[in-house]
Amino acid sequence: MNNFNLHNPTKVLFGKGQIENISKEIPADAKILLLYGGGSIKKNGIYEQVTEALESHKVIEFGGIPANPEYSVLMEALGIIKSENITFLLAVGGGSVIDGTKFLAAAALFEGDSPWDILTQNIRTEVGMPFGAVLTLPATGSEMNSGAVITRASTKEKYAMGGPGLFPLFSVLDPTVIKSIPQRQLANGLADAFVHVLEQYITYSVGADLQDRFAESVLQTIIEVAPKILKDPSDYKAASNFMWSCTMALNGLISQGVPSDWSIHMIGHELTALFGIDHARTLAIITENHYLHNLDDKKEKLAQYATRVWNVTEGSIEERAKAGIQKTTEYFHSLGIDTKLSDYTDDYEGTAEIIATRFTERGWLKMGERGTLTPEDAASIMKMSY
Amino acid sequence: MNNFNLHNPTKVLFGKGQIENISKEIPADAKILLLYGGGSIKKNGIYEQVTEALESHKVIEFGGIPANPEYSVLMEALGIIKSENITFLLAVGGGSVIDGTKFLAAAALFEGDSPWDILTQNIRTEVGMPFGAVLTLPATGSEMNSGAVITRASTKEKYAMGGPGLFPLFSVLDPTVIKSIPQRQLANGLADAFVHVLEQYITYSVGADLQDRFAESVLQTIIEVAPKILKDPSDYKAASNFMWSCTMALNGLISQGVPSDWSIHMIGHELTALFGIDHARTLAIITENHYLHNLDDKKEKLAQYATRVWNVTEGSIEERAKAGIQKTTEYFHSLGIDTKLSDYTDDYEGTAEIIATRFTERGWLKMGERGTLTPEDAASIMKMSY
Repeated sequence: MNNFNLHNPTKVLFGKGQIENISKEIPADAKILLLYGGGSIKKNGIYEQVTEALESHKVIEFGGIPANPEYSVLMEALGIIKSENITFLLAVGGGSVIDGTKFLAAAALFEGDSPWDILTQNIRTEVGMPFGAVLTLPATGSEMNSGAVITRASTKEKYAMGGPGLFPLFSVLDPTVIKSIPQRQLANGLADAFVHVLEQYITYSVGADLQDRFAESVLQTIIEVAPKILKDPSDYKAASNFMWSCTMALNGLISQGVPSDWSIHMIGHELTALFGIDHARTLAIITENHYLHNLDDKKEKLAQYATRVWNVTEGSIEERAKAGIQKTTEYFHSLGIDTKLSDYTDDYEGTAEIIATRFTERGWLKMGERGTLTPEDAASIMKMSY
Repeated sequence: MNNFNLHNPTKVLFGKGQIENISKEIPADAKILLLYGGGSIKKNGIYEQVTEALESHKVIEFGGIPANPEYSVLMEALGIIKSENITFLLAVGGGSVIDGTKFLAAAALFEGDSPWDILTQNIRTEVGMPFGAVLTLPATGSEMNSGAVITRASTKEKYAMGGPGLFPLFSVLDPTVIKSIPQRQLANGLADAFVHVLEQYITYSVGADLQDRFAESVLQTIIEVAPKILKDPSDYKAASNFMWSCTMALNGLISQGVPSDWSIHMIGHELTALFGIDHARTLAIITENHYLHNLDDKKEKLAQYATRVWNVTEGSIEERAKAGIQKTTEYFHSLGIDTKLSDYTDDYEGTAEIIATRFTERGWLKMGERGTLTPEDAASIMKMSY
């Protein structure tokens, strides 16, 4: 096990009826900017619950944060934060709204030339504006971590950012919201959280037995709840396990003391930036071929995964590893998610070269848990995934 | 899954060489009271590492906190905190030293008549003095939770206490300390952490699938590392998994959204108070018969435990449940821990009645996860365990 520092100060309020408790978590004299996305919260009752809980607080609203939180839209919100002297941010939405809010929490206190530098220069945020979240879409884990991914449409780019100052002060996780989520987004969440775990688990062993078992626990739970959730999103037990699994998949616990990969995400982000494909689906496109391309490096962990998570008990390490990869692809298909780029666009030729060039330009020359994955490797994986 | 609020602000510094980083976690102008136990830290090199890390800080020492942190000893330390205007407490030791430090963190700011009231009147500590910990003995999980157990020799009593103000600001977990721990205490830690998980897991199902799997993960990991640790405590991989499992067994994660029992601890504490038997060994005395006595209420969870943790796949629910109980007893024996009260004392007659009377006098009439365990049940379990 590698050394690690773990510090996750986010307070989780989990369960039915927890939205009403946000009033106690936000200072009574706060001036709140309530941030949300496309307006689904006004249809599913969340908006009413939030505004009712905050009836004694000063609240200004900012809606319209898009599915990939867009820099130019967020810059509008930043203007309001400054002109209205906002003191507290409240994200009500999924990962995009929470990520966008994290960017704002960082940008509001940023003292450099332009908030864009936070993204392009990879500047860690040690202290951000205080903010909380009401989660409406389980998937990204953003509700209990300090990372975010921001998109800039004008340059078709996505950048990751973060820092210890960007943990939500609190996050409400009420599983009853799941019944109003469209099937497509439920499937996305089930795929997204699954790959989050894989990125922190399918690497190489450092003898961190407990972290391995926790990762496997999240994967097994997601696999079990996936058909139940897709069949009946109002199944509260399944919804609870789905929601909590998504949070635990990326709240920093299972990654402690172990290597992480994140190459699937790095390549996948480019597909969202280039083609607008849903984040989770870009991961499903890349996963199989990333693991096939890097089979030699990852086969021990893949075989362990196949055995413990998918009950594959027969065969050599390599055979079990390949069976695990195949099971993963079947899992995506069971969610109704296609796993080839050509399923999403006819305009895929040249994508591999574009991605390799971008990675090279950014200096992303040594990716993966061993730092051996090159832009050329990324291009090969991409071509395999057409 | 039941509703829950999770908030664990403790920062964990895990791994080799982390002790030197405590200087950055304690304010430079702090006046520190360094608390420790019987002096083993002066033999195993921990004391030197801690004092070297704090060479620029003002430090006063208070040693001699006994294995069950004793009220009268702690009151001496409280006098020093007040007379010396101490601003930060640093516990260097195992669960007893950390628990004692938590009591002091509470007592130092307590405004009632006597700090004893914190224990007897079950007063939650919302705000305590700031403190950190350097863990030298994995077992209790005290390094990452907000609870403590305090003993008063003059009345032969043990009381639990806690509150959100009693999380350590930081805890150092350096697995290299394990090589200097005597076998007896290693065995105690391996038993103690195991029963901590059982108390939060062997109840009844509320459909919290992920919490179940996390609990099983901790149990499986402890079972796997136990023989390795006992054979070679300098095995760093095994020591790391042992240490992290003990912390995760009782840092509040696996108990979220599920019922907890804690009856084994309630009865066990009396055996320590009455006979001075090591805490972990009292748990081993009670566990088997607690589960046999409450088999009807707990058999589903016991059967799941037997199957998932011990690979017991044959038999009815009741048969598998009993097999799980038997495996648990065998596990204690594999650690060299006896499981009958008569293995520890010849003076056991009447113990059941004493415990039942104490519970009745304290109003502990409805224990266990269903609130159905009476003082008479406790007496029956105790008699079965002679």
